[in-house]
Amino acid sequence: VTLNSFQTSGNSPGLSRCRVGLLGFGTVGAVLARRLTASDFLLPLQLTHICDRRAREKRGRQPDVLANLVWTDRFDDLLTSDTDIIIEAVSATEPAFEHIRAALLSGKSIVTVNKQVVAHHGPGLMSLAERQGRQFRYEGAVGGAMPIVRVLGDGMAGERVRAIDAILSGSSNAVLSRMDEAACSMDDAVAEACAHGYSDADPSADLDGLDAATKLAILCGVGFRLKVLPAQIDTRGTSHLRPENFRAAKLRAGTIRQVAHADYDRERGVLTAWVAPIFVPGTSVFGGMTGPQNAAIIAGEYAGDIVVTGQGAGADATAVAAIGDLVAIARDRAAIVPAPIFKEPKTIVGLADDKIAEAV
Amino acid sequence: VTLNSFQTSGNSPGLSRCRVGLLGFGTVGAVLARRLTASDFLLPLQLTHICDRRAREKRGRQPDVLANLVWTDRFDDLLTSDTDIIIEAVSATEPAFEHIRAALLSGKSIVTVNKQVVAHHGPGLMSLAERQGRQFRYEGAVGGAMPIVRVLGDGMAGERVRAIDAILSGSSNAVLSRMDEAACSMDDAVAEACAHGYSDADPSADLDGLDAATKLAILCGVGFRLKVLPAQIDTRGTSHLRPENFRAAKLRAGTIRQVAHADYDRERGVLTAWVAPIFVPGTSVFGGMTGPQNAAIIAGEYAGDIVVTGQGAGADATAVAAIGDLVAIARDRAAIVPAPIFKEPKTIVGLADDKIAEAV
Repeated sequence: VTLNSFQTSGNSPGLSRCRVGLLGFGTVGAVLARRLTASDFLLPLQLTHICDRRAREKRGRQPDVLANLVWTDRFDDLLTSDTDIIIEAVSATEPAFEHIRAALLSGKSIVTVNKQVVAHHGPGLMSLAERQGRQFRYEGAVGGAMPIVRVLGDGMAGERVRAIDAILSGSSNAVLSRMDEAACSMDDAVAEACAHGYSDADPSADLDGLDAATKLAILCGVGFRLKVLPAQIDTRGTSHLRPENFRAAKLRAGTIRQVAHADYDRERGVLTAWVAPIFVPGTSVFGGMTGPQNAAIIAGEYAGDIVVTGQGAGADATAVAAIGDLVAIARDRAAIVPAPIFKEPKTIVGLADDKIAEAV
Repeated sequence: VTLNSFQTSGNSPGLSRCRVGLLGFGTVGAVLARRLTASDFLLPLQLTHICDRRAREKRGRQPDVLANLVWTDRFDDLLTSDTDIIIEAVSATEPAFEHIRAALLSGKSIVTVNKQVVAHHGPGLMSLAERQGRQFRYEGAVGGAMPIVRVLGDGMAGERVRAIDAILSGSSNAVLSRMDEAACSMDDAVAEACAHGYSDADPSADLDGLDAATKLAILCGVGFRLKVLPAQIDTRGTSHLRPENFRAAKLRAGTIRQVAHADYDRERGVLTAWVAPIFVPGTSVFGGMTGPQNAAIIAGEYAGDIVVTGQGAGADATAVAAIGDLVAIARDRAAIVPAPIFKEPKTIVGLADDKIAEAV
């Protein structure tokens, strides 16, 4: 069984295996560890170390192939190890920032799935990675398996991006699409999303739009080279939605989705950015997104819209993105990825008054 | 005015401008040349040479910014020039293959938009590029501005691809969607597509499915690491379609699109691959594609479907893809991209008998 990816013709200096250390053995970390140690995993990546606060307890419950790796509860052990790349799969901003910083300074490349650390510290960490001759990759921090960072940052490098519209919270989309399909209350829809693993027991950050705003802040960096903090983005919650809102939307041949929007007027330096539940036509890209799917419509000046969709929540989806990042680093360990120069927008505006009618 | 892309923080060795030579000043080449020399083009790429059989005649019609570059009708002048990258924008297989080979041997990296040369010679050219320590990139050869090569090759490197379904011929899609919307004959729809620049005056290779089969062969390489030639793909033409076929499809709440399909059974070594006009529901991704749009649905084992769509025909769309490739090379000129090991499928099968009913 071969994977879709990476076997070299034998001449590459990257043929030797990249040694990988995993920081955080939670939901995503466990899936990553299982995939990286599966017998059919032929990529030139070797998981060697796992660092988790509860390493001792968790190790005991693992099969041999995992239990036989080096486990530790001390991050310093990872720093001084012979690993080439550290995957950071812890969800909080702190101490992830300090960990990533220390790892880059120790000569490790970094793959993170942590949206908080990218949104709050991304530009500085990218510069540090460049100075260190190492890489800092974060596809898994936004959009789950939807490869939006690559599409926007690499695939559209020859385009001038005008606007980004996106569904970025898999759990919010699972809840809203469930309310639409089952005509149920938000509480019931949340319970359903939890049962599928698309949502935490407390999905309030997702439903409030903070999750999507954090990811939108990251995409403003990738697409517009702007330094924007999540708190600067106008964010409207969805928790007030009732089944009758969906019935009303259906009468208008549509439904309600939590959409994140950003457009940037380069001449005037004005960024418009907001996250809000809005009416979307049933036949639109967003209207067709059900369950934990994410979608992004990126409007370019030269070639029009690029659309990308994919599973936006769940550990399997996030692991696909993170392994893609690992492969990118392993393919060319000597690559120096230049850090972009980020600017701050002069003005940030939110949802315009005349658009609030569209917001539900 | 800044572009979505590439300014370094100043520490990168890639800060100096990459010198670019353009081979072929046709429709795509002319758009590329204009964009690369536009006053607001801030990428670290400098177009210095243009090679075209009719260089003398074409140069005279250009504005100063283009006419003042080095023009030549001798490819050897490009080979011996101080360019770092050559963009190959000639549409025929020969002599493009010999040109690309010679350029790689002369130490140039290559960006091509030529589907024929990638489909017929891609694996060999990728190996040669790796041996030479140079790059061979071809995003513009498939899907226009839709970044399918990056999504499938890089973004899904951590996924196991099961199947690819795609609309890959922008001009066929423009013709079929026009027949659907205007209830017109194929001749009228072809004339309309030509008027918009989405189709050649003779779109028979597109309508016959050869164009899509060529691109599907390339995607079988990217997604499954299989060496497949376009002629090995079961290809059904669309030229027999009449307005009544679209009326019948509409009665079934759908329409007709030219779809390319490939799936690979890794255990048995069986590749199923075909291009055919098939019925698609109006609410499906493919049913929503109008004009020269392309779309791809890539089914993965771990994270389900990834969908990507974008403008699939026209010089502007192709130029966006090619400039993205130039930027990728300029970002890290020293990168060595390992060439994949391609296998041949044991068996290649076409459209199954029981599926032919779906084909129109």
